[in-house]
Amino acid sequence: MTSRAFALAKESVEAYVSIKSTTLEERNAALQHIFDSLVEQKAAILEANKKDVVDATVKVSKGELSGSLLSRLDLSSGMKYQQMLDSILEIKRMEDPIGKISLGTRLDEGLDLFRVTSPIGVILIIFEARPEVIANISALCIKTGNSVILKGGKEAASSMAAIGKAISCAMGKTSISNKAVQIVQSHADVAELLKQEASIDLVIPRGSKSLVKYIKDNTRIPVMGHADGICSIYLHASAKREIAIKVVLDSKLNYMAACNAVETLLYDKELSTTILPAVCAELASKGCELRCDQFTYSLVKQLPGVVTASPDDFDTEFLGPTIAIQAVDSLSAAIAHINEHSSGHTDCIVTEDEVVADAFLRQVDSAGVFWNASTRFADGFRYGFGAEIGISTNKLHARGPVGLEGLTTYKYILKGAGQCVNQYSTPAAFKHESLLNPTRT
Amino acid sequence: MTSRAFALAKESVEAYVSIKSTTLEERNAALQHIFDSLVEQKAAILEANKKDVVDATVKVSKGELSGSLLSRLDLSSGMKYQQMLDSILEIKRMEDPIGKISLGTRLDEGLDLFRVTSPIGVILIIFEARPEVIANISALCIKTGNSVILKGGKEAASSMAAIGKAISCAMGKTSISNKAVQIVQSHADVAELLKQEASIDLVIPRGSKSLVKYIKDNTRIPVMGHADGICSIYLHASAKREIAIKVVLDSKLNYMAACNAVETLLYDKELSTTILPAVCAELASKGCELRCDQFTYSLVKQLPGVVTASPDDFDTEFLGPTIAIQAVDSLSAAIAHINEHSSGHTDCIVTEDEVVADAFLRQVDSAGVFWNASTRFADGFRYGFGAEIGISTNKLHARGPVGLEGLTTYKYILKGAGQCVNQYSTPAAFKHESLLNPTRT
Repeated sequence: MTSRAFALAKESVEAYVSIKSTTLEERNAALQHIFDSLVEQKAAILEANKKDVVDATVKVSKGELSGSLLSRLDLSSGMKYQQMLDSILEIKRMEDPIGKISLGTRLDEGLDLFRVTSPIGVILIIFEARPEVIANISALCIKTGNSVILKGGKEAASSMAAIGKAISCAMGKTSISNKAVQIVQSHADVAELLKQEASIDLVIPRGSKSLVKYIKDNTRIPVMGHADGICSIYLHASAKREIAIKVVLDSKLNYMAACNAVETLLYDKELSTTILPAVCAELASKGCELRCDQFTYSLVKQLPGVVTASPDDFDTEFLGPTIAIQAVDSLSAAIAHINEHSSGHTDCIVTEDEVVADAFLRQVDSAGVFWNASTRFADGFRYGFGAEIGISTNKLHARGPVGLEGLTTYKYILKGAGQCVNQYSTPAAFKHESLLNPTRT
Repeated sequence: MTSRAFALAKESVEAYVSIKSTTLEERNAALQHIFDSLVEQKAAILEANKKDVVDATVKVSKGELSGSLLSRLDLSSGMKYQQMLDSILEIKRMEDPIGKISLGTRLDEGLDLFRVTSPIGVILIIFEARPEVIANISALCIKTGNSVILKGGKEAASSMAAIGKAISCAMGKTSISNKAVQIVQSHADVAELLKQEASIDLVIPRGSKSLVKYIKDNTRIPVMGHADGICSIYLHASAKREIAIKVVLDSKLNYMAACNAVETLLYDKELSTTILPAVCAELASKGCELRCDQFTYSLVKQLPGVVTASPDDFDTEFLGPTIAIQAVDSLSAAIAHINEHSSGHTDCIVTEDEVVADAFLRQVDSAGVFWNASTRFADGFRYGFGAEIGISTNKLHARGPVGLEGLTTYKYILKGAGQCVNQYSTPAAFKHESLLNPTRT
């Protein structure tokens, strides 16, 4: 018996055939239709969202749901709906991510090799509460010629059904199969979808650490996501006082629930009586709890909120007003600590010494390595990618903030006139000339 | 209790710290030492290899081992040893794959973002009989600043021990830890190594389909490899007779045991009485068995070696003088057949029609899509990559023939002067100017 998830994944594969061969104009037209449809159906979508919010509010009052999930769920708050609409137009304006040539080599006269970006195939996105993510991610997937299955959390069921209806209605006006964007809720179980490795090429979880871990542990499909954002800042002996204070405070306090907020502060012992107490005093004055190693504790124990750290604190994503602090003996000790404890998301050094900075930037293995800048800059919008599908702490494929490029792969195209390898018996028989600046094959 | 594999993987992680921060000069010096050491110890290595060959010959005579494995094992045959040496010098000559900038963006005055290639970490290579692969792969990994664990087949035990000794001796003369290249045999079981996902970043299997499948099924570490090379050629109605014959014959017969040899031939029915019988007659005259669908069978049954195909034949990598042949009704039927049955390695169209070719090249999802050229060109050396670590049929990370670039990842480096995100409240606050042609950070 074929499962619902199997049938659904097959439909997405068929829709991929339809979407992958579209022109940029066709894909952009689909984005415009989605935009228009979301404008038209705004009242109905917000009405549906209100239902989810009311249901969630009851659950929050019973302690069954967190308040932060409720605030992520509410589409009517602030500029959320407008931002959702804006992001679609922004993605529409971006240049075609498909068909870009990253390598062109003339193997011989009349035998040219090109490496060209192409869609990946079928992408499964699993996310929790934020319903506006559907529109954003659908737009990114359409722009890159992929077919997408969106599986949302049950708290956003009505909102997603309404947004899904708007998208499906918009797709019906295009040349692309409307199965290229499928929104599923309870019909197809996540566990069943995760088994469809024959049809689904990539899974992107957007949500809590436990969601990401569950997915990584339960599928053979490649997963692009990050489980943790344990970011560190290392204050080198040469750090400038003003920069150290600014960067640490912004990294910790600008938005504490973000994965790019700092969780661990390392510092050279040379700063014990200078910058370190000043940084700690500022953090403490903002209500931050300081979990300190013994050495640091003895230095700053008079401040409010100073406690001794347990070893676990250096492997913890606090996502709140808490920071773990440890003294180190050297640059290499700081690098070793970070490579062992950080989650490979973003780590920063504050120093005035360029040689030291360079060693740190080379030797720390994280997706983002920053010099004298807040860890909070690690973000697709701030990087100028225009839109972000997530932040990857994988080492392979896309790493760091992932925009359109992370939703593409490439293929090698070879154009000949009947050449055979038996004509090329030695490597010297090939020209291997770079085809400079080819723009289209 | 910690296993031997755990300890070994830990040693590789430590060695990675040593190798990742080396300069190009240090890495190239290591390659020269390895070259020199393999020249010096040639006699001892060939002596050790002879022992493996003698043992394997006995097994072949008892029917316990295949003759092709024996020929892959023998280092003394032809130019094999010299080619192994040459490849090390060629890798040494290549430009530094690390520290290359693929993106540079000025976020603001004094706040510059760079995307820079970096090593991946610890790579586990598992291969079967060919002992010269050790030298080649070690050189590629050293050049890219990775630390590598090589696990070879037991048939090559003496050869690998001798080559391993030469490499270890060479590494002892460098600034890099000699644990950056570890060669293991029975000490550490493959199954145990595959569990070291905390230490090992990538597994590359080089060997039979069953080896690759075993590895993919038994590890959570990302695997880069291809399980099958089911390549197809599609003869479009507009195909030129001479090109069709040349390309099919070269693709099938140039080296039948290769993964880039063609296994399936598709053709438009318009060619039933013209090119198709000519191609079949040529194949049959070279001793090739033709497994044909009913329609084709009725056309060419008078030729020697023509049989009717079973459905499985279109999902089979024959690796020998056999080809499956099927008529199709249209370009889209050919594309659909290929996307369903090919292994995503390399597929080719023979046509004189550029529009048809373009549709094929866009819509076939394989790593290599060729127009009027032999599938046998799908190879790192022929592509001009200088050296090849394998061919990947993954869609993510490296795809197709994988050279140095596939052994690197990237990181984002952000260089600032104390900037904080609270200074940039709107997207418009960023400059996002491309830093054109930066060469080094």
